[in-house]
Amino acid sequence: MAGNGLVRFFFILVPIGALLAILFAGYFYKKISRFSEGTEEMKEIAEAIRVGARAYLRRQYRGVAIFFAVMFVILLVLGFAGGGSLGSLFVPLAFVTGGFCSGLAGFIGMTTATMANSRTANAARKSLDDGLRVAFQSGAVMGLIVVGLGLLALSGWYFLLAALGKSLPEISTVLLNFGMGASAMALFARVGGGIYTKAADVGADLVGKVEAGIPEDDPRNPAVIADNVGDNVGDVAGMGADLYESYVGAIVAAAILGFSAFSGDLAVKGFLLPFLLAAFGILASIIGAFFVRVKEGEDQVLLKALRRGVNVAAVIMVIASYFGVRLLLGVEHIRVFVAIIGGLLAGVIIGRLSEYYTSAEYKPTKQVAETAATGPATVIIDGLSVGMLSTVFPVVVVAAVIFISYYYTGGGNFQLGLYGIAISAVGMLSTLGITLATDAYGPVADNAGGIAEMAGLPSEVRSRTDALDSLGNTTAATGKGFAIGSAALTALALIATYTQQVQSIDPSFQFDLSLTNPQVLIGLLIGGMLPFIFCSLTMKAVGRAAQKIVVEVRRQFKEIAGLMEGKAKPDYARSVDICAQAAQVEMIVPTLIAILAPIIVGLLLGVNAVTGLLAGSTVVGFTMAVMMANAGGSWDNAKKYIEEGNLGGKGSEAHKAAVVGDTVGDPFKDTSGPSLNILIKLVSMVSLVFAAFILANSLANLF
Amino acid sequence: MAGNGLVRFFFILVPIGALLAILFAGYFYKKISRFSEGTEEMKEIAEAIRVGARAYLRRQYRGVAIFFAVMFVILLVLGFAGGGSLGSLFVPLAFVTGGFCSGLAGFIGMTTATMANSRTANAARKSLDDGLRVAFQSGAVMGLIVVGLGLLALSGWYFLLAALGKSLPEISTVLLNFGMGASAMALFARVGGGIYTKAADVGADLVGKVEAGIPEDDPRNPAVIADNVGDNVGDVAGMGADLYESYVGAIVAAAILGFSAFSGDLAVKGFLLPFLLAAFGILASIIGAFFVRVKEGEDQVLLKALRRGVNVAAVIMVIASYFGVRLLLGVEHIRVFVAIIGGLLAGVIIGRLSEYYTSAEYKPTKQVAETAATGPATVIIDGLSVGMLSTVFPVVVVAAVIFISYYYTGGGNFQLGLYGIAISAVGMLSTLGITLATDAYGPVADNAGGIAEMAGLPSEVRSRTDALDSLGNTTAATGKGFAIGSAALTALALIATYTQQVQSIDPSFQFDLSLTNPQVLIGLLIGGMLPFIFCSLTMKAVGRAAQKIVVEVRRQFKEIAGLMEGKAKPDYARSVDICAQAAQVEMIVPTLIAILAPIIVGLLLGVNAVTGLLAGSTVVGFTMAVMMANAGGSWDNAKKYIEEGNLGGKGSEAHKAAVVGDTVGDPFKDTSGPSLNILIKLVSMVSLVFAAFILANSLANLF
Repeated sequence: MAGNGLVRFFFILVPIGALLAILFAGYFYKKISRFSEGTEEMKEIAEAIRVGARAYLRRQYRGVAIFFAVMFVILLVLGFAGGGSLGSLFVPLAFVTGGFCSGLAGFIGMTTATMANSRTANAARKSLDDGLRVAFQSGAVMGLIVVGLGLLALSGWYFLLAALGKSLPEISTVLLNFGMGASAMALFARVGGGIYTKAADVGADLVGKVEAGIPEDDPRNPAVIADNVGDNVGDVAGMGADLYESYVGAIVAAAILGFSAFSGDLAVKGFLLPFLLAAFGILASIIGAFFVRVKEGEDQVLLKALRRGVNVAAVIMVIASYFGVRLLLGVEHIRVFVAIIGGLLAGVIIGRLSEYYTSAEYKPTKQVAETAATGPATVIIDGLSVGMLSTVFPVVVVAAVIFISYYYTGGGNFQLGLYGIAISAVGMLSTLGITLATDAYGPVADNAGGIAEMAGLPSEVRSRTDALDSLGNTTAATGKGFAIGSAALTALALIATYTQQVQSIDPSFQFDLSLTNPQVLIGLLIGGMLPFIFCSLTMKAVGRAAQKIVVEVRRQFKEIAGLMEGKAKPDYARSVDICAQAAQVEMIVPTLIAILAPIIVGLLLGVNAVTGLLAGSTVVGFTMAVMMANAGGSWDNAKKYIEEGNLGGKGSEAHKAAVVGDTVGDPFKDTSGPSLNILIKLVSMVSLVFAAFILANSLANLF
Repeated sequence: MAGNGLVRFFFILVPIGALLAILFAGYFYKKISRFSEGTEEMKEIAEAIRVGARAYLRRQYRGVAIFFAVMFVILLVLGFAGGGSLGSLFVPLAFVTGGFCSGLAGFIGMTTATMANSRTANAARKSLDDGLRVAFQSGAVMGLIVVGLGLLALSGWYFLLAALGKSLPEISTVLLNFGMGASAMALFARVGGGIYTKAADVGADLVGKVEAGIPEDDPRNPAVIADNVGDNVGDVAGMGADLYESYVGAIVAAAILGFSAFSGDLAVKGFLLPFLLAAFGILASIIGAFFVRVKEGEDQVLLKALRRGVNVAAVIMVIASYFGVRLLLGVEHIRVFVAIIGGLLAGVIIGRLSEYYTSAEYKPTKQVAETAATGPATVIIDGLSVGMLSTVFPVVVVAAVIFISYYYTGGGNFQLGLYGIAISAVGMLSTLGITLATDAYGPVADNAGGIAEMAGLPSEVRSRTDALDSLGNTTAATGKGFAIGSAALTALALIATYTQQVQSIDPSFQFDLSLTNPQVLIGLLIGGMLPFIFCSLTMKAVGRAAQKIVVEVRRQFKEIAGLMEGKAKPDYARSVDICAQAAQVEMIVPTLIAILAPIIVGLLLGVNAVTGLLAGSTVVGFTMAVMMANAGGSWDNAKKYIEEGNLGGKGSEAHKAAVVGDTVGDPFKDTSGPSLNILIKLVSMVSLVFAAFILANSLANLF
């Protein structure tokens, strides 16, 4: 299929990169497993978390399996109804494998995290560096597994179908279905995990901290294990599935647009480039990972260590992608390189902006903390205000990337411009192997702190795990920047992909995507409303689930004699079970809405309206995701800032007010906000996959 | 200019209707003034409120005058630079008169309200019916003045320019500038008034209720007069200016689209129809107003009385508009009538939906109240969730109106379809004379309650004013439904008007408004971000201003000896002054952003991006306005529900939590939320007025 030796070499480089990522993930996993789990008590706690987390994932996957089975049948029927051949079997299969791989990435990440948490706590008994190394390596396993599995599955499908003689457009359709499967799984994981983790967290805090007055992570709290399980199923497995779908979605969208942006030999190369960039990114990430180390005692050394790793990877990526573009597309298309750099830079800038708005070192969050003096209402108002204001620059940055990618890289060529936008998202995500490592490291450190507390380790250990944890909050801001920024760019690229898909299915179809077309306006309005419903449902779900935990924890405090005196043990498993059940039930409706909305709008109002819906949900979803992430982060850190002894410190009225802010922020930043990133892409993916069905059956054909 | 006698008759009917409205406003004003102001104490308090309110408006108008003077010069220079003749003088003049009339409507409404508040309290000493009559008539003055002044000014400009031989397109341009002036003034009034009223309210509550533990409206609270002044400058003058611009904007947009939707004689008739509908609406409102009366003792009788008036007006309007359309446009265009009905119905439905989500009689707000049991955080989460969910049906209703107006009324004709959308907004607002009366009556009743409390009137009077006040909250929900719904439809119509304006300025310009055009996408993103910045700034402004009041009230409590014992009087004027100053300063930046954003985006990225910006701000602004209004209303009523003795009643922990929700809701529902309605139209108006300037000077001409 490929024209020359270099292209063939590059094609083979892709699965090699993927395998290397998996290999190194295994290597890091091995390294972690050699560390000791610590005392008997630590082992026991870690085991409880592990069991709870596995039990939840099992339950979640069982529920999701039904959904995937139904969708498999639907896609199969649609394929055959559309005059499909045996080839139509690949479409539903790809969908299912997409979901499977996304779930697998989350599962492996979580298994590693639940193995690493006690080891991190134990290593922190020795030194800060040891703690960091274990936690970071656990994050690296996750990061590398996500990119490795992503690239491996995509290239596996590619080689299989190419070997069967399928054309690139046919392969693209299959890859899209793979992407849709990954997105659907990611949404389930994010929503379910997000509800789980925040229900446990809020429930544990409301009764434990506020009512009973016992500290966080106190072993007497019956929801404490559920809380720690939540960190793993939400922040690790959920995030893994989330970024898996971002990664896959960005690559597939860029590949498809690349194929149509060029003609002849170059078309295949345009298709290949995003895969190649991903492979380069893996190598850069692996090298970068080895630069993360730290000497005890240096100031701010942890953050520097992590940044060093990320920066090394970024520099390698810049150089590699320059040569990649030059060799693959030729020097006349070197402007594509600028789009890649734009994406990489934008990810970094959006992350830094999040840091500015959410870190207590800067003015906005300090002010949120100060408003706590006048009570919870002013904290809420100020936090919302910070979150809303924080949308400005990310929007400007994304707008700038679009502008540069389209006008400079595209140079007036419409198709090439769209490719530029898509490839900038790939550029942003290319070093995901290491950026995700610095992000996924956070929950491990958080859990390690919890284990240290529950196992009664000495205070210097706890202060080391605290240092690791607080750093995790900063890197999480950066990670969120990448997740949000890439989601916006990918979603925009998917809108373009959608219109091309429709056009390729029915070349005679006349799009009218003008903003003066009422179908488009209606689509925009409905699309703009989707994030609102979605956030409403997920936030309410957290509230409902937390309520159940509150009732259960209160019951245990009352009924289990000697619990408060530490003479009896609470029934941890019961809280774990309640959270799991609630999350399982509550994740269904929001996900179904995301899947059904574009289909229903399409059936009623046609593909113009669907395109409007995609644009509306992207604009609102993007701004709201930024708002919620940053408001939530700001409240969280304002509370921590007060807990550090500022403005009255722990136990003061200001602290109580800040706790209210933090509690509101929990579903903002860990449930609803991050789910929006997936929502806006899943809606696009569903639209793409059902485009032929909508075109044939829409009522819009009648008017 | 007009073709036949009927058209001429209808043209003359318009100013006659306007004058009738003003006449009846004067009649109601006279009737109110005959009532007694009550005891000396009541007179004194009413006078203090009156003085404070006037002082604020004077200050506001002085500040705004500078803005209008600058804009006058800019518009004049632009007019002459664009090769204008003496006729160019009309454009800046129209702009200034638009601002003046909007301000005047607010001023008259407020003067009436501050005159009626003590009279309402005094009348309530006699009977509920008397209280209702005074309060409602005060609202009617406001409602009729808004529609009367609106229609009079528009038709005044029309007749003047027509007499000078100007063409309808030239007249349209002048009317647009009038509309922009009204919008700019409205935004100043809404933002300034909204900041004033909530700063005073929040500030008074935070220290008085929460810290000092004295009841609301207690005369010992130094901010109590400022609080009452705030009701007048925010909820009366602000709302008057707001709905004035809605009314004018809807009529002008529909008139312009009407002129291009038809050809020949019919074009003038299409232009005339919205004016005629407005005139019919005035007659319907006046008749309806006489149906508002009540007998003491009947249950739920107040709401019925108000609804009777509104319903009578609506029925008259339906009949009149049927004949109006039939006589003016002919039976072949009778489908335009359907758009009018659609608009009227949509306004009612959106209002009822608001009622459902915000009234404690229904499940959503009851649940918000119940979550108060677990503290402020859950109240906030649940209220936000209710607000977000409440966007669903208003979006569906507006989408349905767009669909019906465009496809049924337009019948496949693009221009006629757009006209249908615009005329549905006029239909929704046609009976504004009476719907605004039922809305503006609320703050008067609220103030009357305050005066009754401060003057120590017996408890049965207070319970009557409470009944009036609580009804006011329900009708306010309906009023907000009309304001939001009409804003969305008008903003959408203005987008279409904008594209036509650009096309008429430069017929060779090729629009590319497709959602795949990056300029459009960037515009959408920036437009979608505008409501976020806007709400952030206005909410923060409320917080800052409230902070100043908190400091001042605390100071007075501390420094004025004998204040708490009721032996000394607080320095009310000082709090009034602080609020006024803060509001004056804080209203500038948000308003300037609204005005500058479309100009800057236009200069950098051209008119395609501006159109995207308009669509983005409309979609986000509309959904966010609904969300904020309903979340705020729900928190407010949840608190009241608890205060009525449910879930622990006043003073319980649940009540404290609900107060936090209410305090967060205050800027939501009375500052940021309602300002969004103006924002989305002002942005369109500015774009329209500066279209020629942007077309000539945009950097987009280079790429």
